Amino acid sequence: MFEKIMELALKRGFLIQSAEVYNAPAGFYDFGPVGTALKRKIQEAWRNQFIRREGNLEIETCAILPEIVLKASGHVGCFADPLVECIKCAKKHRADELIRNYLGKNKEELKKKNPKALELKTEGMNAEQLTKTITELGITCECGGKLNEAKPFNLMFKTNIGAAEGNTAYTRPETAQGIFLDFQRVFKAHGAKLPMGIAQIGRSFRNEISPRQGLLRLREFTQMELEYFFDPQNQKHLKFKEVENEEIKLYTREEQMKNSEKETRITARELVEKKIVPNEIMAYFLVREKQFYDAMGVKKHRIRHMLAEETPHYSGGNFDVEVETSYGWIETVGTAYRTDYDLKSHAQASKKELSVFIEERKEKIIPHVVEPSFGVDRLFWCVLEAAYRQANKEQGKEWDWFDFPTSISPIDVAVFPLMKKDGMPEKAREIEKTLREEGLDVLYDESGSVGKRYARMDEVGTPYCITVDYETKETGEVTIRFRNDGKQIKVKISEIARTIKKCIKEGKVSV
Amino acid sequence: MFEKIMELALKRGFLIQSAEVYNAPAGFYDFGPVGTALKRKIQEAWRNQFIRREGNLEIETCAILPEIVLKASGHVGCFADPLVECIKCAKKHRADELIRNYLGKNKEELKKKNPKALELKTEGMNAEQLTKTITELGITCECGGKLNEAKPFNLMFKTNIGAAEGNTAYTRPETAQGIFLDFQRVFKAHGAKLPMGIAQIGRSFRNEISPRQGLLRLREFTQMELEYFFDPQNQKHLKFKEVENEEIKLYTREEQMKNSEKETRITARELVEKKIVPNEIMAYFLVREKQFYDAMGVKKHRIRHMLAEETPHYSGGNFDVEVETSYGWIETVGTAYRTDYDLKSHAQASKKELSVFIEERKEKIIPHVVEPSFGVDRLFWCVLEAAYRQANKEQGKEWDWFDFPTSISPIDVAVFPLMKKDGMPEKAREIEKTLREEGLDVLYDESGSVGKRYARMDEVGTPYCITVDYETKETGEVTIRFRNDGKQIKVKISEIARTIKKCIKEGKVSV
Repeated sequence: MFEKIMELALKRGFLIQSAEVYNAPAGFYDFGPVGTALKRKIQEAWRNQFIRREGNLEIETCAILPEIVLKASGHVGCFADPLVECIKCAKKHRADELIRNYLGKNKEELKKKNPKALELKTEGMNAEQLTKTITELGITCECGGKLNEAKPFNLMFKTNIGAAEGNTAYTRPETAQGIFLDFQRVFKAHGAKLPMGIAQIGRSFRNEISPRQGLLRLREFTQMELEYFFDPQNQKHLKFKEVENEEIKLYTREEQMKNSEKETRITARELVEKKIVPNEIMAYFLVREKQFYDAMGVKKHRIRHMLAEETPHYSGGNFDVEVETSYGWIETVGTAYRTDYDLKSHAQASKKELSVFIEERKEKIIPHVVEPSFGVDRLFWCVLEAAYRQANKEQGKEWDWFDFPTSISPIDVAVFPLMKKDGMPEKAREIEKTLREEGLDVLYDESGSVGKRYARMDEVGTPYCITVDYETKETGEVTIRFRNDGKQIKVKISEIARTIKKCIKEGKVSV
Repeated sequence: MFEKIMELALKRGFLIQSAEVYNAPAGFYDFGPVGTALKRKIQEAWRNQFIRREGNLEIETCAILPEIVLKASGHVGCFADPLVECIKCAKKHRADELIRNYLGKNKEELKKKNPKALELKTEGMNAEQLTKTITELGITCECGGKLNEAKPFNLMFKTNIGAAEGNTAYTRPETAQGIFLDFQRVFKAHGAKLPMGIAQIGRSFRNEISPRQGLLRLREFTQMELEYFFDPQNQKHLKFKEVENEEIKLYTREEQMKNSEKETRITARELVEKKIVPNEIMAYFLVREKQFYDAMGVKKHRIRHMLAEETPHYSGGNFDVEVETSYGWIETVGTAYRTDYDLKSHAQASKKELSVFIEERKEKIIPHVVEPSFGVDRLFWCVLEAAYRQANKEQGKEWDWFDFPTSISPIDVAVFPLMKKDGMPEKAREIEKTLREEGLDVLYDESGSVGKRYARMDEVGTPYCITVDYETKETGEVTIRFRNDGKQIKVKISEIARTIKKCIKEGKVSV
């Protein structure tokens, strides 16, 4: 199915392959006009829920960071994938992926010859183990060539600052580090009290060995990350009451070990009481994540408790929001209790004081952190998949279309003159201008038949199309056509803005 | 004065030096919470004026570009500054800057000994001429060491895509190239008619040899660029009528040659009629730029007609918006008639068809482009300087503060309980929540005296402070304190949102 969605996304300008005219390297996507609008609205919705409504703070930090920062954070040492190279054709492969692909492709044969191989898990294997596995299974390059030993390949784009050599720097692999670096300044300028949430929306970079799967593994991507700093002696969340009875769908460690797909419905309170999550703060954010995904129209999600071997040594708990897509279940949000790991690492490496003073205990501490980290591009793709509808003539849809939630539709409303004459274009332009001044995202279109214009608007998920026709001049009324059932209502010109805004708010997409 | 403004900006979290705890390299600034809000509002104001209101399109393209793209655009070959190195201490200097600084510092001495040297202009000098000048004037490194020959140093950050060497790439030096690369896709998906404006707001990078002057010369910065594609046989602008009688302040080539600072007030129509600008489109944007700067509170600006030697060979005309700051006059917007240079270059290099078909003439052409290109960080700094007010006890201001236009103040309104008791905090929190739901940027503050809270809000330019006091419970009223005169009015709780929104819209900052 993803081919059909991608085809529509490319045709309508949601997505464009970066430097496509040069057949540039994979893993880079640009966002066309409707894609940019959709992405911006997703980000704005996140900003409203995770920053504004929570009274958190937002900052914007640099994408190029000097090596010393990323040494301290552990990225220079550990942010790597295992790389093997073909001895014959020099092609590079990601070793663990190569093994997984091999196992997937040769399932039937292996069932007979080597059933134990099918139980292999590449997660957690080191370079030596990967090399051994490749040798034992006799995996070769596509060209038939043998592969050399697996070696870690660092995933950061490397560069140099200034004209003198030796000032190594990298494009950031995550937006989080900028938040840790600025924590002291922000803390002091904003009341110096815990808890304090600091968020950032911005680009990050990973020099993937072999990017693939459209938007799911990019070399340049956007993150929305929140670092929620708190006193480890107070792991409560002030607004926990608001969410304690909300249910999430949990994919427990037990079910994962059993290779079962069973989900458990569980409330935030139970998560805390049963000590599945480390604290109220984690449970609070898991519910907010679930609510956010629901609001984006992405309903097929679950929260996976990450296995012990997937959890970093310093972590107090890791949970992923996973979404079922045409690529299978994919991770789209990581929520991690990072403890004091990052601030402590930077304090040690920079020899600067990164602790805070807790007034009531007269004690200096390094705050702990729970981090919800969203990948915007993956979420963007999930939104496309969830909203995608195939043509269905019985329902009056002769074209594939998108059923976006009205709050994030790239275009709120389109305005058409029925014909290019008799003052209709002028009237439609007037309406376009008024609606724009009301803050709506408006498109004016006068080319082709109205049917074709409806089709184009369905293809970008526009919920409302307004048509100025012959009667408009006499009655002062226009028709509003609703995306999902194609039905129409008549509305006075003076009432258009109010009607459209009300419909957007209520998510109304049919008459 | 910039030291005082920078001090306040750092103290209040407008700006933070990137990776400050590591004393990281110069030329990188992060934006703290109020800085991020101010920057976002500046960008949103630009988006409204230059994209939404104009019916232009917005896209978002990748920051990492393969070498082939930047070879075609000319950046690999020509985007360089002249570099000289000290033979003794190996320090790198920018050659032209070194000469200008030398001339500035030794003005008096040179007046007597070598008055001709003071007439030297480094603009347009090539590496050989710069080397010769340095030798003739006897300029040395600060350490006393001799300098070697000037060589061009490319200003792009270089990296490599993927695990195999030889896939050179760079972080983009401007957002514009992404627009040219995507032009065909966007054009086809959006009606395939000229004129078509495509804009982008995003980060760009320049590996400056010696960055300085705070936000004025950064290695990582944000641009807002609009590429307005049009048919060269129709250089009119549909909305020219709206601006034709508007005046701008022009700094003509003639006055520049005379070393005079005289400005000429001239209307958009005169600009076109006197052929000072190449077309209506250029005049249209120059007026819109002027209006935008006025709306940002930055009034000390002029439009400089760039000299012939500053104008690229392919250009049909270049004009800069310059602003008078404490660093002198600085360029903050470049407006260039780039003709068909970029599309043509990419068409040649990629061997792809980047022309469009003009229906009425049945002719294939490569569109021409006028480009208004804004530097957000420089504008941000200009906004800070223009809004900065020094303490003045007679006016009741015992602290330095910012007089931002209400439309871009980082915080719209602060809410205070007079005391931390008797239900005042609860009531204030309720008001905070309501105002937030109304879409306002709200800050709640209960720490310290109300006087101190006012001071903090003045320091970040918050126009309105609401206080819940003892009387609120009885009367249902709060006080609103206005930033500029410190005077207060009483308002019913149910009327707060409406009142604040009205004041913001009207720019009201005093009673």
